[in-house]
Amino acid sequence: MPGQFCVIAPDVKLGHDVTIHNFVNLYGCEIGDGTRVGSFVEIQKNARVGRYCKISSHSFICEGVTIEDEVFIGHGVTFINDKVPRATNSKGELQTEDDWKPVPVIVKRGASIGSGATILCGVTIGERAVVGAGAVVTRDVAADTTVIGNPASPRKR
Amino acid sequence: MPGQFCVIAPDVKLGHDVTIHNFVNLYGCEIGDGTRVGSFVEIQKNARVGRYCKISSHSFICEGVTIEDEVFIGHGVTFINDKVPRATNSKGELQTEDDWKPVPVIVKRGASIGSGATILCGVTIGERAVVGAGAVVTRDVAADTTVIGNPASPRKR
Amino acid sequence: MPGQFCVIAPDVKLGHDVTIHNFVNLYGCEIGDGTRVGSFVEIQKNARVGRYCKISSHSFICEGVTIEDEVFIGHGVTFINDKVPRATNSKGELQTEDDWKPVPVIVKRGASIGSGATILCGVTIGERAVVGAGAVVTRDVAADTTVIGNPASPRKR
Repeated sequence: MPGQFCVIAPDVKLGHDVTIHNFVNLYGCEIGDGTRVGSFVEIQKNARVGRYCKISSHSFICEGVTIEDEVFIGHGVTFINDKVPRATNSKGELQTEDDWKPVPVIVKRGASIGSGATILCGVTIGERAVVGAGAVVTRDVAADTTVIGNPASPRKR
Repeated sequence: MPGQFCVIAPDVKLGHDVTIHNFVNLYGCEIGDGTRVGSFVEIQKNARVGRYCKISSHSFICEGVTIEDEVFIGHGVTFINDKVPRATNSKGELQTEDDWKPVPVIVKRGASIGSGATILCGVTIGERAVVGAGAVVTRDVAADTTVIGNPASPRKR
Repeated sequence: MPGQFCVIAPDVKLGHDVTIHNFVNLYGCEIGDGTRVGSFVEIQKNARVGRYCKISSHSFICEGVTIEDEVFIGHGVTFINDKVPRATNSKGELQTEDDWKPVPVIVKRGASIGSGATILCGVTIGERAVVGAGAVVTRDVAADTTVIGNPASPRKR
């Protein structure tokens, strides 16, 4: 049941009991059973969100991102799928889908991404890993590991 | 007087002369006289914003946050109320309000939070303190102090 | 052709073939031919965006910002036009346009600003320069240079 002022394209695949708050923009994506999507969230085509996840407000999940089950995505989290983004191609024309291929990102089961984090393309975030708030993740995060900072690195104990 | 495409729940308590821009999502919160709320802002239940504040676009103010009078909140500022957020509880069920308690944040009178800053839970930001743009605030900020960086620390002079 | 739930003030100057996605808030700005504006974007008055740019979702472009042609602005990018923002003036009244002047920012032709970056006021970003994702840019960036980190500095090779 979407909230107010939502745009959910007909090609979106929603599981059972998905909760969608206000001001949500979804197209071409897949969202599993029981997941909650916060306000001001955009999820693009060919992104997959698993079951029993929380996707918090102001987050952006782009093409090529796979989020497994029971993952927490904080507020204002941004995913990336392009290593060197440019507006135009070498001929000075706006880039189209033919000019690049999205580089995938995987967030494994039970991981938590803190609010304000930025996740670069090509990264895998392991099971139950924690990305600290405001971290900029430039490389893989091992399972059960907490990373913080810009660039993100494992937290010293 | 709200702008266009706003969702303001009936339980929101607005003071006099509150200005609300377009695409604003408010529920269960309290906003004092003369305060301005920018576009794409969400303010959750049990958040309190004082008088003559500016809450700029794309910011998120969560449950448990108290903002005193004459505070400036920049664009894309994110508050946090949970130390180790998880999507599900130990039984694999989506967390509910029974699974955690919000950890409070206080922003004292006259403070300024720069755009893109992230404020972790449990923090107090002192009177007239300044949080630099893009800072990640992990501990208390003293009155009349400027902090910058990730994690934020006092600026050297 | 704007998407759904857009607010485009009558004083906005749009070039030919400008694409505007859903949930966009524009007023008093100028946007050149062929540029694309993503969802949840706000562009303020007296901001200028050139031709064949991509302005990605959740970004905020404020008064005083000039973006030249063929520039890529990632998702969740925040510009700033005020060095020491405060909510109120010395009399305790909400600041108005008489209390400050926007400090300009220029992004030169062909530059790319990574997602989650914050750009402080007074900065010039050179032609074809690249600002890394999540960077906090506090000083000028030379042409053809890549900067990363908080505060942003040139990437070592």
